[in-house]
Amino acid sequence: MPSAWIISIGNELLIGRVVNTNAAWLARKLTYLGYQVRRIVVVPDEEAEIVAMFREALSRADLVVSTGGLGPTPDDITNLAVAKALGVDVAVDEVAKEWVLEKYRQRGYQVTPERLKMAYIPRGAKPLYNSVGVAPGIWAEQEGRILVVLPGVPKEMEAIFEEQVEPLLRTRGPRLCFAEDSFRLVGVPEADLSPVLRDALKIDERIYVKSHPKGHEVGAPLEEIHIYGSAESCDKARDLVARVRQFLVDEINRRFPQAKISAPPQERQAD
Amino acid sequence: MPSAWIISIGNELLIGRVVNTNAAWLARKLTYLGYQVRRIVVVPDEEAEIVAMFREALSRADLVVSTGGLGPTPDDITNLAVAKALGVDVAVDEVAKEWVLEKYRQRGYQVTPERLKMAYIPRGAKPLYNSVGVAPGIWAEQEGRILVVLPGVPKEMEAIFEEQVEPLLRTRGPRLCFAEDSFRLVGVPEADLSPVLRDALKIDERIYVKSHPKGHEVGAPLEEIHIYGSAESCDKARDLVARVRQFLVDEINRRFPQAKISAPPQERQAD
Repeated sequence: MPSAWIISIGNELLIGRVVNTNAAWLARKLTYLGYQVRRIVVVPDEEAEIVAMFREALSRADLVVSTGGLGPTPDDITNLAVAKALGVDVAVDEVAKEWVLEKYRQRGYQVTPERLKMAYIPRGAKPLYNSVGVAPGIWAEQEGRILVVLPGVPKEMEAIFEEQVEPLLRTRGPRLCFAEDSFRLVGVPEADLSPVLRDALKIDERIYVKSHPKGHEVGAPLEEIHIYGSAESCDKARDLVARVRQFLVDEINRRFPQAKISAPPQERQAD
Repeated sequence: MPSAWIISIGNELLIGRVVNTNAAWLARKLTYLGYQVRRIVVVPDEEAEIVAMFREALSRADLVVSTGGLGPTPDDITNLAVAKALGVDVAVDEVAKEWVLEKYRQRGYQVTPERLKMAYIPRGAKPLYNSVGVAPGIWAEQEGRILVVLPGVPKEMEAIFEEQVEPLLRTRGPRLCFAEDSFRLVGVPEADLSPVLRDALKIDERIYVKSHPKGHEVGAPLEEIHIYGSAESCDKARDLVARVRQFLVDEINRRFPQAKISAPPQERQAD
């Protein structure tokens, strides 16, 4: 089973102002993708510390994923540190530069040198499009190891991971079969639903459950619940997802007798 | 400024089933006590990994605090790993044994060898009383470095830290002056108050704010809010606490016009 390390960069984590939810989110995703997460480590915004930690991680893990330190402020130095750890130069990436310029054009902001810094990528690496914010992520490979560098803002980190990284890891990572299923739920507020989803996650490490709020239907909250599972065979993955779906349906009926569960609309399944 | 490392032990953190709130809580406490937290690291429930990490931490930090792996199950091996890292034997500690036996007597449980395992402490170390659960914590010193080993259950970890560890670190750690203040608050549910407390924590790294629910008064929720601050001088610590108190009072009045703020009752201040 290939191994993964997660590196979280940021002083705000080390003074306890922020809880490291990013690491837990990534740990679940990587486990579901078939990686064994062997270490999560938080380091300060200091170049020497970050470079040393990337080097150690790249010498011990098949996959290294980092969060934080990709923004426009002076203490955002992760792209430079990654280049040092890889032993390569850092240079403006023309694709990343276009993304950054376009983001600032849309926002009507000036492009300062600090902001353009976000378009610097280690030579040979590939920028990853950030659909939520500005700072691109980075994908690099060295001696068969994969390095993924993501911003620290959770929404941006999650979007880049789900849109760019997860599809790549599914083809490049462990050979697993993935299955998914979904249903619609009316009448349970998302906050009340979250303990049920948390319980479902305990069924198996290799599942992932997500609720998407879709507004209201006749005054009651409407969500789509998506269930993802992975396993060594497609039969096992499908069984796992079916088991989780059954658990969710039973628990929701038990805890929320007023709730209505239905299949998702046809067009949703086709996308 | 003395340095601290936090080591979190547990596979549940590495598969993303649990968010590492313990580390954030400890990071805030240690910062407030005058330590610079340089690293937070999560390792699996494997002896070799835990021993290696304790050794590395003890070679680089003035204070090492760990959580997890002190319970009665077979994968709870932290006390054995700590002894190996320190290079000493592990033996039944008579004080710890009495605590463990008494806890199980109260609960009416049998004392199995697995449960008695919790009374094993590295030779030369000191057990720390657990007022909430069973597993004692451990305090060890080696070559001027301090090692504190705590259980992973948040309530137990917090109780041992606040009741046993914090008083010791205040005398043994950085020379700081501590100040505190408190007030009573009627009419704001604790959940609504927590964003205000979070904002207050941003004022300075060296403060700590805690709300204690005290039931209800004429149907409205009653809390006592405690503010703690530390600084190099007592004047600075008092100023800091006064500033945070003023912020809290202003924000509470602004967000909850119905709330009532008053001094805590006299007897509370005297304890």
